[in-house]
Amino acid sequence: MEIKVVRRVLAANEAVAAENRAVFAEKGIFVINLMSSPGSGKTTTLEKAISRIAPSIPTAVIVGDVCTTNDAKRLARAGVPVVQITTDEFGGDCHLAAHVIKAALAQIDLDSIHFLVVENVGNLVCPAEFDIGEDLKGVVLSVTEGEDKPLKYPQMFRVCSFALVNKIDLLPYLDFDKDAALANIRAVNPAMEIFEISARTEQGLDTWIRWLEDRVRAKRRGR
Amino acid sequence: MEIKVVRRVLAANEAVAAENRAVFAEKGIFVINLMSSPGSGKTTTLEKAISRIAPSIPTAVIVGDVCTTNDAKRLARAGVPVVQITTDEFGGDCHLAAHVIKAALAQIDLDSIHFLVVENVGNLVCPAEFDIGEDLKGVVLSVTEGEDKPLKYPQMFRVCSFALVNKIDLLPYLDFDKDAALANIRAVNPAMEIFEISARTEQGLDTWIRWLEDRVRAKRRGR
Repeated sequence: MEIKVVRRVLAANEAVAAENRAVFAEKGIFVINLMSSPGSGKTTTLEKAISRIAPSIPTAVIVGDVCTTNDAKRLARAGVPVVQITTDEFGGDCHLAAHVIKAALAQIDLDSIHFLVVENVGNLVCPAEFDIGEDLKGVVLSVTEGEDKPLKYPQMFRVCSFALVNKIDLLPYLDFDKDAALANIRAVNPAMEIFEISARTEQGLDTWIRWLEDRVRAKRRGR
Repeated sequence: MEIKVVRRVLAANEAVAAENRAVFAEKGIFVINLMSSPGSGKTTTLEKAISRIAPSIPTAVIVGDVCTTNDAKRLARAGVPVVQITTDEFGGDCHLAAHVIKAALAQIDLDSIHFLVVENVGNLVCPAEFDIGEDLKGVVLSVTEGEDKPLKYPQMFRVCSFALVNKIDLLPYLDFDKDAALANIRAVNPAMEIFEISARTEQGLDTWIRWLEDRVRAKRRGR
């Protein structure tokens, strides 16, 4: 019974995600949906990446949290439009659903942007289930979280096209087996594009940014 | 409509949680429900704590994951009975519900234990909503996750009676403002019992263990 209800919610979500996707295609906007555990470093990563991307590619951000608007304030420092969603208003949802994104899009001038970044609620489980109409899903895995997370949260790692292995500046102080972590990611998703980064020291950030920018430009050319 | 469905699920959960609570009262078993983000160090903390507690207080563990039985294997090293729940079987649930705990209890000899530890699914959102009949809820916050988590996930910090601030051995390598983190915890929950620990170096672990053992013994005396 509970499972039937969940299926109905997901089917309704797919329909709205398809509407969002049609809008993004028409406007030529490339969209990523970035997910992770709480505290993996999504906001710091985006703050640093967007301040490098925005001068050449007009960008906007939608950021989801259960509560507080701290992340929106931090991301606004990158000088781009930011829409904060606090899911408290939607019953404390643990993920961003397509209809919530659709409502947020009304607050963005879609003709003026080429790239839209969605920072999802910090949660390795539920957001993986909800398509929002994005081009690519990505997951941030902090090296402080342990090597086993891809195996323990396989759905998340399966639906994502890229993974940012973050906080690599802390590797000397941890018992973290990076090769095992990468092998676990590939065991769940052999096609995953993996970027090793430190948002704090900015190591590895440029490689990921170039990869993203290529995809933003390809979508605009393909219109 | 969606919210009504959720309320019905929670009301059904409360009824089963009350049944569990009655069983724990009758048997004189003290029960904690430990929650956190993925990768905060719940399993390592429990592995070390339970191996110290079990020689004097008969203990069992129920551990929940979406997938894999790695944690059960690790916890079994502490030499206590461990029941692994993989919520994949229950539709990939992102939390442990009371009926899942009830089913797991059938696999434990309840007359032979005084202390039951439930390690919940790694998730700072959903598990906070689901009472399982426990005496105390606790949350593990790793210092690598940032100071703001209590404000961003207030429901979790509101429902918990104790917080373990973990991985303090990493403080010298992080931009983590511990005083701000503690203030954020107290802003959400002024009555929170806070323990600063490192599961890896075992610093601070004994203070938490003694606090727990006092509560286990008090419940047995109170029967």
